[in-house]
Amino acid sequence: MTVRAAVAGASGYAGGEVLRLLLAHPEVEIGALTGNANAGQDLGALQPHLSPLAGRVLEETTAEVLAGHDVVFLALPHGQSAAIARQFDPGVLVVDMGADFRLDSAADWEAFYGTPHAGTWPYGLPELPGARAALAGTRRVAVPGCYPTAVSLALFPAYVGRLAEADAVVVAASGTSGAGRAAKAHLLGSEVMGSMSPYGVGGGHRHTPEMSQNLSAAAGEKVTVSFTPTLAPMPRGILATCSVRAKAGVTQETVRAAYEKAYADEPFVHLLPEGQWPATAAVYGSNTVQVQVAYDENAQRITTVSAIDNLTKGTAGGAVQSMNIALGLPEETGLPLTGVAP
Amino acid sequence: MTVRAAVAGASGYAGGEVLRLLLAHPEVEIGALTGNANAGQDLGALQPHLSPLAGRVLEETTAEVLAGHDVVFLALPHGQSAAIARQFDPGVLVVDMGADFRLDSAADWEAFYGTPHAGTWPYGLPELPGARAALAGTRRVAVPGCYPTAVSLALFPAYVGRLAEADAVVVAASGTSGAGRAAKAHLLGSEVMGSMSPYGVGGGHRHTPEMSQNLSAAAGEKVTVSFTPTLAPMPRGILATCSVRAKAGVTQETVRAAYEKAYADEPFVHLLPEGQWPATAAVYGSNTVQVQVAYDENAQRITTVSAIDNLTKGTAGGAVQSMNIALGLPEETGLPLTGVAP
Amino acid sequence: MTVRAAVAGASGYAGGEVLRLLLAHPEVEIGALTGNANAGQDLGALQPHLSPLAGRVLEETTAEVLAGHDVVFLALPHGQSAAIARQFDPGVLVVDMGADFRLDSAADWEAFYGTPHAGTWPYGLPELPGARAALAGTRRVAVPGCYPTAVSLALFPAYVGRLAEADAVVVAASGTSGAGRAAKAHLLGSEVMGSMSPYGVGGGHRHTPEMSQNLSAAAGEKVTVSFTPTLAPMPRGILATCSVRAKAGVTQETVRAAYEKAYADEPFVHLLPEGQWPATAAVYGSNTVQVQVAYDENAQRITTVSAIDNLTKGTAGGAVQSMNIALGLPEETGLPLTGVAP
Amino acid sequence: MTVRAAVAGASGYAGGEVLRLLLAHPEVEIGALTGNANAGQDLGALQPHLSPLAGRVLEETTAEVLAGHDVVFLALPHGQSAAIARQFDPGVLVVDMGADFRLDSAADWEAFYGTPHAGTWPYGLPELPGARAALAGTRRVAVPGCYPTAVSLALFPAYVGRLAEADAVVVAASGTSGAGRAAKAHLLGSEVMGSMSPYGVGGGHRHTPEMSQNLSAAAGEKVTVSFTPTLAPMPRGILATCSVRAKAGVTQETVRAAYEKAYADEPFVHLLPEGQWPATAAVYGSNTVQVQVAYDENAQRITTVSAIDNLTKGTAGGAVQSMNIALGLPEETGLPLTGVAP
Repeated sequence: MTVRAAVAGASGYAGGEVLRLLLAHPEVEIGALTGNANAGQDLGALQPHLSPLAGRVLEETTAEVLAGHDVVFLALPHGQSAAIARQFDPGVLVVDMGADFRLDSAADWEAFYGTPHAGTWPYGLPELPGARAALAGTRRVAVPGCYPTAVSLALFPAYVGRLAEADAVVVAASGTSGAGRAAKAHLLGSEVMGSMSPYGVGGGHRHTPEMSQNLSAAAGEKVTVSFTPTLAPMPRGILATCSVRAKAGVTQETVRAAYEKAYADEPFVHLLPEGQWPATAAVYGSNTVQVQVAYDENAQRITTVSAIDNLTKGTAGGAVQSMNIALGLPEETGLPLTGVAP
Repeated sequence: MTVRAAVAGASGYAGGEVLRLLLAHPEVEIGALTGNANAGQDLGALQPHLSPLAGRVLEETTAEVLAGHDVVFLALPHGQSAAIARQFDPGVLVVDMGADFRLDSAADWEAFYGTPHAGTWPYGLPELPGARAALAGTRRVAVPGCYPTAVSLALFPAYVGRLAEADAVVVAASGTSGAGRAAKAHLLGSEVMGSMSPYGVGGGHRHTPEMSQNLSAAAGEKVTVSFTPTLAPMPRGILATCSVRAKAGVTQETVRAAYEKAYADEPFVHLLPEGQWPATAAVYGSNTVQVQVAYDENAQRITTVSAIDNLTKGTAGGAVQSMNIALGLPEETGLPLTGVAP
Repeated sequence: MTVRAAVAGASGYAGGEVLRLLLAHPEVEIGALTGNANAGQDLGALQPHLSPLAGRVLEETTAEVLAGHDVVFLALPHGQSAAIARQFDPGVLVVDMGADFRLDSAADWEAFYGTPHAGTWPYGLPELPGARAALAGTRRVAVPGCYPTAVSLALFPAYVGRLAEADAVVVAASGTSGAGRAAKAHLLGSEVMGSMSPYGVGGGHRHTPEMSQNLSAAAGEKVTVSFTPTLAPMPRGILATCSVRAKAGVTQETVRAAYEKAYADEPFVHLLPEGQWPATAAVYGSNTVQVQVAYDENAQRITTVSAIDNLTKGTAGGAVQSMNIALGLPEETGLPLTGVAP
Repeated sequence: MTVRAAVAGASGYAGGEVLRLLLAHPEVEIGALTGNANAGQDLGALQPHLSPLAGRVLEETTAEVLAGHDVVFLALPHGQSAAIARQFDPGVLVVDMGADFRLDSAADWEAFYGTPHAGTWPYGLPELPGARAALAGTRRVAVPGCYPTAVSLALFPAYVGRLAEADAVVVAASGTSGAGRAAKAHLLGSEVMGSMSPYGVGGGHRHTPEMSQNLSAAAGEKVTVSFTPTLAPMPRGILATCSVRAKAGVTQETVRAAYEKAYADEPFVHLLPEGQWPATAAVYGSNTVQVQVAYDENAQRITTVSAIDNLTKGTAGGAVQSMNIALGLPEETGLPLTGVAP
């Protein structure tokens, strides 16, 4: 099988990462590459790490340019995917790495994004209960947000196992690539190196309802999430630390067992041996998720931690994993299991 | 007034930082400097940033060498302070930057440190209720741990104001200097750059009972703390993110008012304007604490965040601040209010 | 003496650093603060590390606003200093941290900056031969560029001592703050962390003729400089590595002696003991310069290395040092000799 | 073809990197893995980024354990390779990532390493003139040092083209992984983040004679190298900046032409378009070398710059590339051309 893939938004970080993965994918041939502000420029200058694509010139992001492919990856700013998505042939697999089709609740969408709800597509987090069935054969995929990927995988087994109260506290540290490639003064290297700082505190981050949606589905009840994202001085990676109050009778053993059961057969989730903790460096550039859990007897709380690469498993790797499922390819095809470390 | 100060453990990070501050203190003259493994070596090679002390040779850490000073700062590994402290003249001000005398509860001490409890000294976090009175004129000071400094200042006003449930969740990111200067493979630059990782998860970190002690005193009831420390890729700084369930009737206004009241007259605590969030880079090398709070109406939780420099306000700056109070000097003497940024 | 100082360009990195130093200067009172794009904004939001100035609002950069001070520091983009400088009273000390008045040669200025030469002011690198005499009592100071500061101090003793051929090779690594605070995509944290890269290669960097000017004056002959600046993944600091072919008869001893002679009495230059090498971390936030030299017998070349903080000694510290000389204050007043490390 | 490969020294950085590459190599099956101090430990704890190898236990480094493989990679401390190498069957391909067999000159070896010369093996830098012929079919490979890889590729075309004087000046910045994984205080994250510093200045670095050997062979005359390595605050990467005096008649065009000729058909060398400069981030985790050159008319010097990943092309990637040639596999097999960026 040769899959012909186009990438819209090839000059940004998500676009660059999906190209890095597709270049290593044995079944994919790279087709049209588009940008907007950067249309007409050489990808070799914009993404110098993708040396095999040096000399390829970006085109305008239009439905015409993107037509005639088996798969189209959309790496566009929020709100642009919905507009262009309507123009694609229903038989083309469209994988949206933006937010437009992630939320079930139109009310949540409107409250957090301020625009009309565009609809909901099958959700590209295959590890969630029921997700693979929805992805198999689909021609539309909503790739999860990077934080919801890390947090959902850190917490859903505790909720599936009915081990935790429905009041989750999440503090997550993200590398700066999560904030995108647009030039902003507060994201300058001079500002971020040596600094940890939170943002979107108090419930305002747009990924909050997405986490709540996933965890509520797992729990069978509404789960609120107190979510604080922080910006960490590193280019990539998310470390999500989650704390939930344990239900009565929970022990270290029941918690461990719930996670072992959830992740026994997952190719990309590495539940670490007890006593070893996730580190973002270990999953740098890889589609692997490291997960660990502990029960704090004194506080009667469960702490779970996950580490992902926000651009790989958190965005482009999740997108390719979902593409594989949608197209009937082996799920692991072309996806790195090893990180680049140290 | 000229205060003659000795520093035991001058080759480590805490010792180096207290010397940096003492060099800038108008009332202090630096006396004996000691190390153990490094006795006999030139401080200019060990602490090349302290150029005015280049040529000074470290002596052995003994009570004799440290005698004859007005103040002795102890920057020794846990457990060594208690032994040497007994040998000092009661009139000498001894400021212990180690853990030995921080905990009131012998049971907590023994559970977390595994050795007999050495006692309790006045606690060097002047911003806590009642702390200044205990420090005035004292000749023994237990400098708080770096994490308890950040967390206590982030949370105590919420407990004093009876705004929060007694079940605190804390996730804190620390720069690597908090782990000390001993050569360990997991602290190599190659390992920590580009990586966020937790440690001591599930309630095991030794600073946990110290936080609980401070917050329980503020709350008037036992406060449990689910504490997860994380190692961040930066040399200095702690960002503490705290989440507590709000009591009924709490609003953004009542939370804000409690913090404004607590910090109206504190020279080193900067409660930021609403909407501005702490960043460790802003307090790099300074004794200032940045604090911010927000009420999350959806989750019914209060999120508070503080940023400190773990070596300055979190260790050596707190030590000098307490020295100033103990000796009757103006509390701000010699302590930087501005960070080195960017 | 109370010196009333204004700062034009207070929202940038050089402006922020001069304010950090002036806040600690015992003879200075801070007056007008101006910005352009940021006029009307609170300095507490723009420079959150300068907490004592939180609440101060930036004014427009005009001669009227800046009038009535003893000293005006100009931290403006290249080309703007000359225009406003003409409007100041001749009795006011104007310290220009931009490039406009650094070069003696109008031809060099025009070749590298492309605008008419505005003139030459006394050059604010006091350690150069004859510089202090020119600065004493002056009311106009051209603060050197950050790279020329590091390179001139690394090399001029070799040229004064007639030890080196007039063909200098310089490779310097700079922290990202040297590139300023304007938002540019290639300076994003995501781009610079983990990366070393050169720029302005092949002789094009504007600091090249300034280095050549200083070294030629020391050598008594025209010295060419092959200069390659590189961007390093750190916020601050310059490490300049210089290689010059040794003249016949040079030995390690003659090289060492020349540097010892040059720097015996310099308060801010720390010629390190043999075998110890400069590190930018050791001078972080300080006005100290670390210098070291070695003679490579095999290659018959002299290698000299200097480390400075580009914002302190390389810009704002050099500016305050020159101000002190111009006003007749002790040269070290208010300037940190110790770095913030680790 | 299935190649069975053993790795001696699998717990260090070079060993981990060769395993990362071998896991992605379609013709290789991983056999014995050995360590010394770490024998008996789980690779999953030692190299957590290599999740497919979690559970594999390290054995002792002995000839017996390493016997029975088609290829043995030696990632051992200097001096240990020679001893064990004598015990391998001559038909086994032994790829030594240490220094023992790199230098032709016994005198240079003894001067820089202080032990008897063990001999010389075919040199694993295929891009050098004549190197591929020597590697084809060989059963012994000496992998070059990381700095000599970067510097030789940056400079040899200038020497082959007789464009440069035989007096090379090289300043190279390396990520900290080049210094290995042994715990040393000066390599702690606290020390290296935010810092640039040189080491081995004045001709003492052991890679100096290796560079001189390679460049002299290209030039047909003895080339001296003034080499200054610097430690940069990043885990990986080498940026080598080289300056050589141009011979008479050299122009930008002749320099460019020499490099275009040298690298026209090299799969792993990316001579960048004029005006684009190498960056280590662009080759992170990849076997690609970025090269650029410029002629500085004013200084009459040629500046060449190369960027590599010190662990990939600089060590383990070069090793696998040489293995491919030695075994008759296509040279690019299993080697990444794309970096992980940002």
